[in-house]
Amino acid sequence: MKIAVDAMGGDYAPEEIVLGAVEAVKAYDFDVVLVGDEKKIRGVLTKYGAKESDRLSIVHASEVIEMGEHPAQAIRRKKDASIVVATRLVKDGLCDAVVAAGSTGAAVTAALFGLGRIKGIERPCIATPIPSKKGITVLLDSGANANSKPKHLVEGAIMGYHYAKYILGVEKPTVGLLNIGEEASKGNELCQKTYPMLENLKTISFYGNVEGRDIPKGTVDVVVCDGFVGNVILKFGEGMAMFIIRLVRDTIKNSGFIAKLGALAVYPALKSLKKRLDFTEYGGAPLLGVDGSFIICHGSSKAKAIKNAVRVAGEVAERDVVGHIRKSIEEEEVEQYDSES
Amino acid sequence: MKIAVDAMGGDYAPEEIVLGAVEAVKAYDFDVVLVGDEKKIRGVLTKYGAKESDRLSIVHASEVIEMGEHPAQAIRRKKDASIVVATRLVKDGLCDAVVAAGSTGAAVTAALFGLGRIKGIERPCIATPIPSKKGITVLLDSGANANSKPKHLVEGAIMGYHYAKYILGVEKPTVGLLNIGEEASKGNELCQKTYPMLENLKTISFYGNVEGRDIPKGTVDVVVCDGFVGNVILKFGEGMAMFIIRLVRDTIKNSGFIAKLGALAVYPALKSLKKRLDFTEYGGAPLLGVDGSFIICHGSSKAKAIKNAVRVAGEVAERDVVGHIRKSIEEEEVEQYDSES
Repeated sequence: MKIAVDAMGGDYAPEEIVLGAVEAVKAYDFDVVLVGDEKKIRGVLTKYGAKESDRLSIVHASEVIEMGEHPAQAIRRKKDASIVVATRLVKDGLCDAVVAAGSTGAAVTAALFGLGRIKGIERPCIATPIPSKKGITVLLDSGANANSKPKHLVEGAIMGYHYAKYILGVEKPTVGLLNIGEEASKGNELCQKTYPMLENLKTISFYGNVEGRDIPKGTVDVVVCDGFVGNVILKFGEGMAMFIIRLVRDTIKNSGFIAKLGALAVYPALKSLKKRLDFTEYGGAPLLGVDGSFIICHGSSKAKAIKNAVRVAGEVAERDVVGHIRKSIEEEEVEQYDSES
Repeated sequence: MKIAVDAMGGDYAPEEIVLGAVEAVKAYDFDVVLVGDEKKIRGVLTKYGAKESDRLSIVHASEVIEMGEHPAQAIRRKKDASIVVATRLVKDGLCDAVVAAGSTGAAVTAALFGLGRIKGIERPCIATPIPSKKGITVLLDSGANANSKPKHLVEGAIMGYHYAKYILGVEKPTVGLLNIGEEASKGNELCQKTYPMLENLKTISFYGNVEGRDIPKGTVDVVVCDGFVGNVILKFGEGMAMFIIRLVRDTIKNSGFIAKLGALAVYPALKSLKKRLDFTEYGGAPLLGVDGSFIICHGSSKAKAIKNAVRVAGEVAERDVVGHIRKSIEEEEVEQYDSES
């Protein structure tokens, strides 16, 4: 498996991206193609005593899409942007998956334009792993579609199921519909219409409605929702986690001498916890529904996150998540659903 | 000020509710009328050596609305339900505010039927105080309306502003629209349509879009969103906070001898932090937009939460939040907005 990594995307590009790739080829059996400014990439490699090889190569791309640019316009105009070139490598069969840490909008657009959608999928979506009491809950859509229709949530349920099964290794993943009550009749129009459609699916196991608290509780393996809701939750959760960890630290700090002594011993534990709650540590979020393996990383990704993302990208390709989704969508005949429903 | 407290609503009714009322009349200058099964209420008072008085009286109500009942049906059928009687006391001018800890649906319905809406308000909503880095962020709607239209978010912005100003004591509260990006053009249709309407308001200060992470950050004093989104966030936040506190405890526990020693000193601090993150501690969530002061408490409220809610209810009535909202709505001529917009 050969992973195309956009070396120019993200707040710490190219340095941390290149470093992550170097670590990935050491740790895993996946090869990496670094896509971007050849000179800059080579500079980082040299700086850290790493070398190009069969397993770690460079494909030059002369342009970069910046964070502020309008995704569709930028993708259309900059034919030689690193994210566009990386995606093309997969389209042309030269690579098996893309890892991208730049603008999410640009990544989604590059994937849609460059790879197209799996037949029957109308709206690809971003699946984000969220830490929970039981390990990981996959939340999707976490930001690709802000105006989902029932069909899109059904697609999400199917895609999330296969991601949990083949990448997280859950034998029979349960899928819940995010709602504001347990009964089928609860919630907004979107949920009320989606519920019976999910009940009718043959290829996945629908658990029923779940509520916000079920995400950290780990009630189900996959939680499906509209991309607006998912994105708000994701960012709220990240902010909340960092806020609480800081509160814990401050609370300890202001608790008198003995607590302070205790704190010295507790801080390393807090630090490791902070990592566990850092959603970026989980190796990126797959963009599911495009016709190829595509992993989106947080803009603030450092080497470790990129390394993890390369592993996830390799696994998504190797275990043919796209193929499993395609098969399931065919069996469910999702494409025949009226897209207005 | 005289507060009507539904003594029969909530997981720990009547005991904890009555206790909370007893503590409230001791602590604050507000009187309480306990509404519900006279015998049971008197039993609790006797058990704890408390007595009826001018400041703490009982109004008998023979029926109770249970958690599972359909709100509208139950409210219509049970004319003598404690929540219905409590609301009537306010409608009839015998009390100044209601505190209710039972089914949220029943409380909202009782308030709508019993008090009606402020003129110009189409959808009353629930405002929930959420702990943030800077103190408190008011999130609304947090669960009354699952299918909001732009006009409803505008109403929410106005109502949240006055709540923050007169109850939280923020001199010039800032109001943000919860969205998935900062630019005015971002987000779903609801947000795109709501943004310019909020910009045009004269009586409140609109900050612009905020994201999920801005809630714990405290970027603005008031965050407006659809009730589906607000409810999901609220429950996710509660679950997440409890999950993280437990993680901190477990992490410390598994960190070796010295950390464990430190933990002994740290646990009390964690406990106080848990309280700070317990959304129920904040004295309930006001139902804004009904024509009267109405505070909804968590079903799991204990005495302290009820005591706080009585204080907040008294303040909402005393500071005439309803009047300020009415004035603002008149000035903005919100009622002329097309409710379909």
